[in-house]
Amino acid sequence: MEFTAAQIAELLGGVVAGNPETTVQTLSKIEEGHPGSLSFLANQAYTPYIYSTQASVVIVNNDFVAEKPIATTLIKVADAYVAFAKLLEYYNTIKNNKTGIEQPSFVASTSTLGTDCYVGAFAYVGEGCRIGNNVKIYPHVYIGDEVTIGDNTTLFSGVKIYPQCILGSEVTLHGGCIIGADGFGFAPNSENSYNKIAQIGNVIIEDHVEIGASTTIDRATMGSTIIRKGVKLDNLIQVAHNVEIGENTVIAAQTGIAGSTKIGKNCLIGGQVGIVGHLKIGDNVKIAAQSGIAKSIPDGQTVQGSPAFGIGDYVRSYAMFRRLPELVTKLNDIEKKQNG
Amino acid sequence: MEFTAAQIAELLGGVVAGNPETTVQTLSKIEEGHPGSLSFLANQAYTPYIYSTQASVVIVNNDFVAEKPIATTLIKVADAYVAFAKLLEYYNTIKNNKTGIEQPSFVASTSTLGTDCYVGAFAYVGEGCRIGNNVKIYPHVYIGDEVTIGDNTTLFSGVKIYPQCILGSEVTLHGGCIIGADGFGFAPNSENSYNKIAQIGNVIIEDHVEIGASTTIDRATMGSTIIRKGVKLDNLIQVAHNVEIGENTVIAAQTGIAGSTKIGKNCLIGGQVGIVGHLKIGDNVKIAAQSGIAKSIPDGQTVQGSPAFGIGDYVRSYAMFRRLPELVTKLNDIEKKQNG
Amino acid sequence: MEFTAAQIAELLGGVVAGNPETTVQTLSKIEEGHPGSLSFLANQAYTPYIYSTQASVVIVNNDFVAEKPIATTLIKVADAYVAFAKLLEYYNTIKNNKTGIEQPSFVASTSTLGTDCYVGAFAYVGEGCRIGNNVKIYPHVYIGDEVTIGDNTTLFSGVKIYPQCILGSEVTLHGGCIIGADGFGFAPNSENSYNKIAQIGNVIIEDHVEIGASTTIDRATMGSTIIRKGVKLDNLIQVAHNVEIGENTVIAAQTGIAGSTKIGKNCLIGGQVGIVGHLKIGDNVKIAAQSGIAKSIPDGQTVQGSPAFGIGDYVRSYAMFRRLPELVTKLNDIEKKQNG
Repeated sequence: MEFTAAQIAELLGGVVAGNPETTVQTLSKIEEGHPGSLSFLANQAYTPYIYSTQASVVIVNNDFVAEKPIATTLIKVADAYVAFAKLLEYYNTIKNNKTGIEQPSFVASTSTLGTDCYVGAFAYVGEGCRIGNNVKIYPHVYIGDEVTIGDNTTLFSGVKIYPQCILGSEVTLHGGCIIGADGFGFAPNSENSYNKIAQIGNVIIEDHVEIGASTTIDRATMGSTIIRKGVKLDNLIQVAHNVEIGENTVIAAQTGIAGSTKIGKNCLIGGQVGIVGHLKIGDNVKIAAQSGIAKSIPDGQTVQGSPAFGIGDYVRSYAMFRRLPELVTKLNDIEKKQNG
Repeated sequence: MEFTAAQIAELLGGVVAGNPETTVQTLSKIEEGHPGSLSFLANQAYTPYIYSTQASVVIVNNDFVAEKPIATTLIKVADAYVAFAKLLEYYNTIKNNKTGIEQPSFVASTSTLGTDCYVGAFAYVGEGCRIGNNVKIYPHVYIGDEVTIGDNTTLFSGVKIYPQCILGSEVTLHGGCIIGADGFGFAPNSENSYNKIAQIGNVIIEDHVEIGASTTIDRATMGSTIIRKGVKLDNLIQVAHNVEIGENTVIAAQTGIAGSTKIGKNCLIGGQVGIVGHLKIGDNVKIAAQSGIAKSIPDGQTVQGSPAFGIGDYVRSYAMFRRLPELVTKLNDIEKKQNG
Repeated sequence: MEFTAAQIAELLGGVVAGNPETTVQTLSKIEEGHPGSLSFLANQAYTPYIYSTQASVVIVNNDFVAEKPIATTLIKVADAYVAFAKLLEYYNTIKNNKTGIEQPSFVASTSTLGTDCYVGAFAYVGEGCRIGNNVKIYPHVYIGDEVTIGDNTTLFSGVKIYPQCILGSEVTLHGGCIIGADGFGFAPNSENSYNKIAQIGNVIIEDHVEIGASTTIDRATMGSTIIRKGVKLDNLIQVAHNVEIGENTVIAAQTGIAGSTKIGKNCLIGGQVGIVGHLKIGDNVKIAAQSGIAKSIPDGQTVQGSPAFGIGDYVRSYAMFRRLPELVTKLNDIEKKQNG
């Protein structure tokens, strides 16, 4: 895709200063600008770069006044940051605008696809599925029987959705996500081995959820594992059976949540956190990376440690942990003096 | 699937109290019952729900006596829990009873498939494989050359099995498992970079093993990485080359086991545990979640911490860790008093 | 594949002692030798095994002198270890020498493939890709639009490469790797939910890199996430957007690196380590397993803990942590004595 500075200025309602025929093919940060790229300048700290950037076009605020000659073509707009974000969004939409059914693909005759869908080659849609409009199903996606998917949802290559799961609208699942595999449920038997407990529930993912690469969300034993509206999960996260994650909660990579735990709304959970099963984590809770959560947490708390407690207390205890050898020496000196 | 109360009672050897023509399509917990669902009541703590449940049919013990009017249809059996578990199992079997070869799929002409197998569209079976009876190979499964698979084994969508691996009977691998990738072996060379050590062994998975989504088990350098009979592994676990995991050991999600470590029988290992290489973990060992295991563990011990030690000692040390700031204040006060 | 002792001796420039017509089909360690396998003896500690091994052929050093009768056929060479490593390498090359285009596969007409490539059934190559010579693309690999791949690179089954990523030569990606999924970037908005920040950069993987199964490397927001020449990543590692990993750095399984962190050359990073975003880790840094890195680390340091500090200090502090209950008892005794 190639655009002229004039075309972009028109799109953004801006004005060109320089050669309106300058062409760009990509976007870049101003400090990493190169010929053919379009950048922006919004933060004053980056102003020096505008005199040296190799970017072909730079979007600036209307009130920007150059103090030295500038080689690059400028586009002046009301708010350079907002204008650039709009371009980013636009660029991304064009990039992911695939439509049509590639062959060979497999869509069972009992399933329905909405309008403007993309079905990549080697994608599989089982029996009795209802797929909304403008859904993008990339190559090697597997959709088991009786799955429901809302409008404008994107499943990148390699996503696997087990039967009976339900996905909302505007959901994005990245490559390798496994949605709806059996929960980890086994009952010990008299022969010192285990019987499997059948996992007959499903996974429900509400609207506006985004889930990172190779994250796994297990189906419920009965009922549903539920990911509420607006939740954002990073890569390689484990969500066990019957877990529920509240609206707009954000979780960083490699965190694991054990079975039946309920997490509230608007939580921020760091990477590599482990949360044991059957807990209740309140709303607006923050959990530091690598923490281990062994008991329920009330609304609004911030915790750290394994097992975790209040973050301020943890930081103070850890500071003392670092000083332990010195403190033990002091203790021994006091003892010697006392006995001496 | 739709069944009447009368059909289910016949299947379970029970007696209907209420309308025998009541139909159900799914199973639910009694407290989450809804029209069309079948529940059970076995634990007295849940008795109050039977008077308010929306479930269309509820299985109860023969000795259940209602103290108030009940809207739902009952099925009376000798043991409601056992009867319900039987239905769960039956429901699950029906759900996963796919058979036949979907097209396009790829099965090399030098490979053999047993009777009643399912081969989903886009599944791949390489050269020289021997696949048993009633094996379910879902879409996008890859089976490399010369792989052997026993009867009644299920490989869900996206499982990848590298060449020469051996799987037993009644094995279940969930979506995204990678079995037999090269072990992580590199030898530093004189140019400050690394030469790869060829990994020519395989992975052996014995009977009745279940492995969760996106778990990775690497092939041995030489010989075999071995997962013994009855082992249950959760999601996103890493098992390195030449590891051996003993019979009926259960491991929770996101745990990692480094190369050549041998784990005993009947162990219970929590989530996000890390175990270094070349260790021997005994039988009946329990390891708390997020622990780090840096040395071998004798039979029967329970450990916690990173590095881990006895769980009771760890809990006591951690309690003191939480009190460290207070203890340091006390230490300073004593010192001050001593110094006069 | 079957070879005689005479054929192998010729390949290695060695001399047969015993029956030159003895045949072998596989390689083994001497202590695990079995009929049909070829082993080696290089380390004196293993000498006793040569008198009892079941291996059909054993490679030994020229100066090896038997002290007892030996049943197995020997091949004498200048350096048994080097000769065996050469065979391992050779065996591995033969095993992975697939070529040709299996059908059905999908290669867009605007993409180019070099000579001697393997394209497995159900592999997908999008528009505008440039694929080098002798590239192995296993079944179920997805290569998005405009991806560039150098010579002699191998992508095992299930690898997914998002559009615009760039891979060098002699790169190996194991099953389930996800390269170039969107970075985890969201900006809070006024409605207490999040707007996605478009991720329009890519991933660059330089020559001689090997990446383990199900590792995820996210594309940059803008610019590139970069994995430098010779880097070795184990399984289930998370590499976030805009990270850079320096030449010949080695990272063990399940480690996670947050956004924009730069890691130096020749580092050794243990398993399950977490590194927060926007840090600078120097060259030759070593990080113990399960550590949490919360601040930048200068060249050459070795650290442990969460948060991490110098490994020697950590070990000393942790030794005192284990003794904390005893130390607190001592502290209380001193206090009691002081108070009379």
